[in-house]
Amino acid sequence: MCCHPGETTVYDSTETIDPETHPLNGGFLLKTLVLSVDPYMRGRMRAPDQKSYVAAFAVGEPWVSRVITGFGVGVVLRSENNEVAPGKYVYGMAFPHQEYFVAHTITGFTTLEKHPYLPWTVYVGAAGMPGTLIQSGETAFGTTGAGTMVIQLAKRDGLKVIASAGSDEKVAFMREIGADVAFNYKTTDMREVLAREGPIDIYWDNVGGDVLDAALENAAIYARFLECGMISGYDTGQQGIKNLNQTYARALTISGVSVFRLTPKYDEEFYANIPHELATGELKYTEDVSYGLDKVGNVLLAVQTGTNKGKAVVVVAEE
Amino acid sequence: MCCHPGETTVYDSTETIDPETHPLNGGFLLKTLVLSVDPYMRGRMRAPDQKSYVAAFAVGEPWVSRVITGFGVGVVLRSENNEVAPGKYVYGMAFPHQEYFVAHTITGFTTLEKHPYLPWTVYVGAAGMPGTLIQSGETAFGTTGAGTMVIQLAKRDGLKVIASAGSDEKVAFMREIGADVAFNYKTTDMREVLAREGPIDIYWDNVGGDVLDAALENAAIYARFLECGMISGYDTGQQGIKNLNQTYARALTISGVSVFRLTPKYDEEFYANIPHELATGELKYTEDVSYGLDKVGNVLLAVQTGTNKGKAVVVVAEE
Repeated sequence: MCCHPGETTVYDSTETIDPETHPLNGGFLLKTLVLSVDPYMRGRMRAPDQKSYVAAFAVGEPWVSRVITGFGVGVVLRSENNEVAPGKYVYGMAFPHQEYFVAHTITGFTTLEKHPYLPWTVYVGAAGMPGTLIQSGETAFGTTGAGTMVIQLAKRDGLKVIASAGSDEKVAFMREIGADVAFNYKTTDMREVLAREGPIDIYWDNVGGDVLDAALENAAIYARFLECGMISGYDTGQQGIKNLNQTYARALTISGVSVFRLTPKYDEEFYANIPHELATGELKYTEDVSYGLDKVGNVLLAVQTGTNKGKAVVVVAEE
Repeated sequence: MCCHPGETTVYDSTETIDPETHPLNGGFLLKTLVLSVDPYMRGRMRAPDQKSYVAAFAVGEPWVSRVITGFGVGVVLRSENNEVAPGKYVYGMAFPHQEYFVAHTITGFTTLEKHPYLPWTVYVGAAGMPGTLIQSGETAFGTTGAGTMVIQLAKRDGLKVIASAGSDEKVAFMREIGADVAFNYKTTDMREVLAREGPIDIYWDNVGGDVLDAALENAAIYARFLECGMISGYDTGQQGIKNLNQTYARALTISGVSVFRLTPKYDEEFYANIPHELATGELKYTEDVSYGLDKVGNVLLAVQTGTNKGKAVVVVAEE
């Protein structure tokens, strides 16, 4: 397993700064409020010469230049950059897992308005990266209980939703938020469920491997598969997919979904609607919140083993 | 190997009919002129209880009810069906490999006008099923020398075309018709060529297996893969594809192309243009023509082993 705290990841508290006086050199000082821990981060834990769509995390000492980065929300404390004023809140995909850091450009950050009663954790969870994937169609199958936003948005679009997760607790929550069929893939024959409840018009895939092969076997003609991730292979290497001949057999389409690339197009619409609906309870969400930067190692491990109970987020600081 | 003539396929000449008097029972009598032999036919040589996108060929005696079917062109000799008059030419995807047969509906057939100097073989080749796939974009990679129509149409759309085939003769022809880069995959390091000449925006795949994995490794951001077939696995079973994580890494799309399903939409445009351009030499093509229904077994074997020199067609009869 990849993510043993203290071995593959280290919480290092040796470096400190004085937020009042730390030199900015034309940049702005951010205080990190919350951080997101996500399955894709496993892909960054690799040798740097292996190419991938996201850069590898750097390894080795000194720890201070080997900091994990990920989605986060922070507040601007001081600024010498005229694009960003102190007191502003920003969301970004490359937050270092540090309590404070100096950034030099606003590019790559989204400015957020503080919501009267939504916590910032929601902005890296249900109203953050994992929630920005929306689909429409007929019968949808979604893996991973974390895809609760997808279930709710799919139901809103009038889809029949089949959903799987790895614990009875997650399965119960998926039913509560509207999944027509929800099952525990550890105790249920997935192929039997898909054969009975399918064929699948839309598959929202975060798992890959044998689940993807099973979905291909149970795909409808003209099905659309959305590939968001393949956690089944992150630690062990990707298992070969054998049923791709179903692409032409069923005239289906497999599209890679890259939040990094879709964000610029959908950000405005997303932030105009989703936080409000989360705040009113129109959309439901679950979080598994940990407190303190020193917990990141444990949370990374939990996400890779699937023991988190909801979207994994780390609260680094209150304001 | 699947296709040994006399073992897995049998040429049976025991049944005869009298075309003048054979009862039609409200149908129409077709004389088969040409038949197409294509890689996908291997997929029909399987146990009937294995599901697939095309029905399995029936096996066993009596041979007369176990006839191979495929794309073909025929002429109507007699008709009791008011949709079809004698003298008409039809193209269809379910021609039995027989010299004559009675059909009961025009559904599934396309009526063709006889061209003043194009032979009917072209209508199951360059102007038939394998030619109806058109794409547009930037850098395209196409496998199988049979995709000569794709190369020419891609060049016409201003693409840079990389093409591979299994013999130097095919490679030379691909260069002649405009491929910018053509290589023999049996003697050249495919990954080296794709890394140097790519990345690939469009991949026209007829092979699957390791070639598909190599194409995924060398795909551009937002690449589009067109899956037309996976001949590498027809005989041995499909090899697992390991690089599907590139779908989300590169935000690429893999679309299954089903000629069976696209034909209704594009038939009219296709037949209005392509035969004329083949006749004038604006588009070039190669055929590997065999004569006589008794050759089908050998041609099937040639297509599966790649020893055919151009689109494999069988002339069954002159009019």
